[in-house]
Amino acid sequence: MEMNHEQFMELALQEAEKAVKQGEVPIGAVIVKDGRVVAKAHNMREQWLDATAHAEVIAIREACEKLHNWRLSGCTLYVTVEPCPMCAGAIYNSRVDTVIFGCRDNRAGAVESLFNVLSHPLLNHQPQVIGGILEDRCAAVVRDFFADCRAKEK
Amino acid sequence: MEMNHEQFMELALQEAEKAVKQGEVPIGAVIVKDGRVVAKAHNMREQWLDATAHAEVIAIREACEKLHNWRLSGCTLYVTVEPCPMCAGAIYNSRVDTVIFGCRDNRAGAVESLFNVLSHPLLNHQPQVIGGILEDRCAAVVRDFFADCRAKEK
Repeated sequence: MEMNHEQFMELALQEAEKAVKQGEVPIGAVIVKDGRVVAKAHNMREQWLDATAHAEVIAIREACEKLHNWRLSGCTLYVTVEPCPMCAGAIYNSRVDTVIFGCRDNRAGAVESLFNVLSHPLLNHQPQVIGGILEDRCAAVVRDFFADCRAKEK
Repeated sequence: MEMNHEQFMELALQEAEKAVKQGEVPIGAVIVKDGRVVAKAHNMREQWLDATAHAEVIAIREACEKLHNWRLSGCTLYVTVEPCPMCAGAIYNSRVDTVIFGCRDNRAGAVESLFNVLSHPLLNHQPQVIGGILEDRCAAVVRDFFADCRAKEK
């Protein structure tokens, strides 16, 4: 039976949950092609000490490696939070067909909040975008992480 | 004697020239801290089959590794062409102090052409930006590369 958007987003949420345990801002991403997961990742910035190590960028690099192609045509990327400018740009550069995200990011979102990197009329690739899948749970995992960080600081 | 912007951009142009020989779109980047080069790179998309392997992203990852820090505060990034959304976002994420670019990119530039990723008032880091350093030569190396590609196709 084919998996639906909620089921793949559930896998992205599992990635985010792993990040919580590792002290990373909990955002997870999964890339799917022909109904199969080809890459999954979560934010690794603190552990790798790498400013580019967001979930989407790591997943895109992993998918490119696995498919031996920098073009991820035919792929769908699931991510728990609206991509930032870097990640939206990486999605654009990799020609992913479809992007499914959980909750918006009003502080740095580059899909519909601060910028429209995936729908700008002058860019030559505009993936299909669907937001709001498992929105409340995707938002809660990040909110709870920061509340916990603040509580520990006190 | 301290090197000036033109001299560091010359190093970025040397990186771009290496890319030409390797069949990569010729864009080069150099990251400098305290007057010393800490990373340099050129576009490697075709050879690495990696959609994220732009000059700036590779240089940022290299600088983070060398400085053992995802924050590149105190660093200046030189790049021959106005950064795309992914690269401008990576620059923002890495907290680079200053960005010096050569020529504009009217098709995908995310600093002043299509987006203002490095000066958006809602983002919490705005690096200083200077454009137009060795502008004509930075533009020429890309223009000549594509002219040569088209000539070979005939």
